[in-house]
Amino acid sequence: MYSDVPWRLIRSLSRKKERESTKLTVAEGPSVVLSALEAGVELCAVVLTEEFARSGKGHGILEAVAKHPDAGRLFVVSEELYSRMSGTKSPQGAMSLLSFPFRFARGEPGNTWAEALDIVGVDIQDPGNVGTLIRTGACAGASSVIICGQGADPFSPKVIRASAGAIFKTRIIFDDDCINLLRRIHDSGKLIYKAVPRGGIMPWEAGFRSPCTVVLGNEARGLGPEIIELPGDCITVPMPGGTESLNVAMACSALVYEAVRQRTKASDV
Amino acid sequence: MYSDVPWRLIRSLSRKKERESTKLTVAEGPSVVLSALEAGVELCAVVLTEEFARSGKGHGILEAVAKHPDAGRLFVVSEELYSRMSGTKSPQGAMSLLSFPFRFARGEPGNTWAEALDIVGVDIQDPGNVGTLIRTGACAGASSVIICGQGADPFSPKVIRASAGAIFKTRIIFDDDCINLLRRIHDSGKLIYKAVPRGGIMPWEAGFRSPCTVVLGNEARGLGPEIIELPGDCITVPMPGGTESLNVAMACSALVYEAVRQRTKASDV
Repeated sequence: MYSDVPWRLIRSLSRKKERESTKLTVAEGPSVVLSALEAGVELCAVVLTEEFARSGKGHGILEAVAKHPDAGRLFVVSEELYSRMSGTKSPQGAMSLLSFPFRFARGEPGNTWAEALDIVGVDIQDPGNVGTLIRTGACAGASSVIICGQGADPFSPKVIRASAGAIFKTRIIFDDDCINLLRRIHDSGKLIYKAVPRGGIMPWEAGFRSPCTVVLGNEARGLGPEIIELPGDCITVPMPGGTESLNVAMACSALVYEAVRQRTKASDV
Repeated sequence: MYSDVPWRLIRSLSRKKERESTKLTVAEGPSVVLSALEAGVELCAVVLTEEFARSGKGHGILEAVAKHPDAGRLFVVSEELYSRMSGTKSPQGAMSLLSFPFRFARGEPGNTWAEALDIVGVDIQDPGNVGTLIRTGACAGASSVIICGQGADPFSPKVIRASAGAIFKTRIIFDDDCINLLRRIHDSGKLIYKAVPRGGIMPWEAGFRSPCTVVLGNEARGLGPEIIELPGDCITVPMPGGTESLNVAMACSALVYEAVRQRTKASDV
């Protein structure tokens, strides 16, 4: 099981160019690998360190691999070989190699809500923020998380790690052409809420019970004028403390959880 | 201005032990340094690179230094010397040296709300999460953010950076003894809401208009039983998507923004 692990390939996938040409990426960390297995994502390979494979969590992963219809090949390798492949400073001993967009052995993640609740991130630069957007979307039961424009690659190992595996439990869409995407969403009859740092309606003034899409922009610049002028309301997470700006992921959480509140507490007006 | 910058001291402050013994820390990044200056925090020194000092943002900081009653000494140094002091991979050319707890030249940050709204983080390990808790608290106008237990040092350069300077705009309290702290808060008549991953009341069922305290626990373990059994309601950010857990900072945002909603929209029942 040792010698033929494709470690050079795995290591190369930290670079976007290599991911683009191979359509492969890496999911790293015990809980992330377990999420992929639980979600029934088709994997090309699972790589564990010898020490991790003997641990309690390692047994959990080995069991999940055994039950999985398409977990790919299993490699148990030395710590030293593992660390050559790992993209983290403190390798945790478990990773998997998989193709993207993800293929689901048992059907894609479904919708939680009767009405659509989509999250669109435009030009989000930081992989941690993209991952957290996805994690929040998955927790809140978003219908899909759509990553648009010139930001972090949603299928990069860093984003997958920051999503804590939630990327396997919600629908992820990548779309280069944000303006046409939002026009199509508008034409389909969904409400569009564009997050802006000031001057929009308050979250609780929005009609989040209808099919809707929340759009969030770049960390430094927010949403550009070409997005702001599209149909839909601007919405603002208020800052009574007066501090300059919320992190995009925190704003997403505040907005999406207002939608969850409205949808759960259907009697509230 | 070159030779006597205390670069060895500044570099050493990435270590908690050195911060403890000197009671000094480092705030790094242009917007973080500007926040400290705007908030009127007393600084020991401001350090800029030559290139940064000539930039537009650099001029902004130099102007703020000139207006500040107690900005300490100004050093303009070479990129090479700066990068020896910097705690970041991509140094942005501006940092300041300051003592902690912070001393405010123009009075401490005040309360935004008539009724207290406090955030308590217990054993939060990740400096990014502690910083984001503080940033969310500052945006939402929290009366104070209290960091408890065995987690990341709230005065570490990483936390200060992750707070995006918000740490200078809200009251930060550090308390080792979380249980006694929460008992005192309870005895003072404030409501206590303890965040748990399941089984608590929904955020919108909580009475966030009264003086209250939101308590969040460690990333992996949550709040321990010794905290759960203290007075106060358990509260749960629901996960209709069924994903295992929200990041502690996202849960904080969802809870604190429900408090902002209730307090802003006073007519809602």
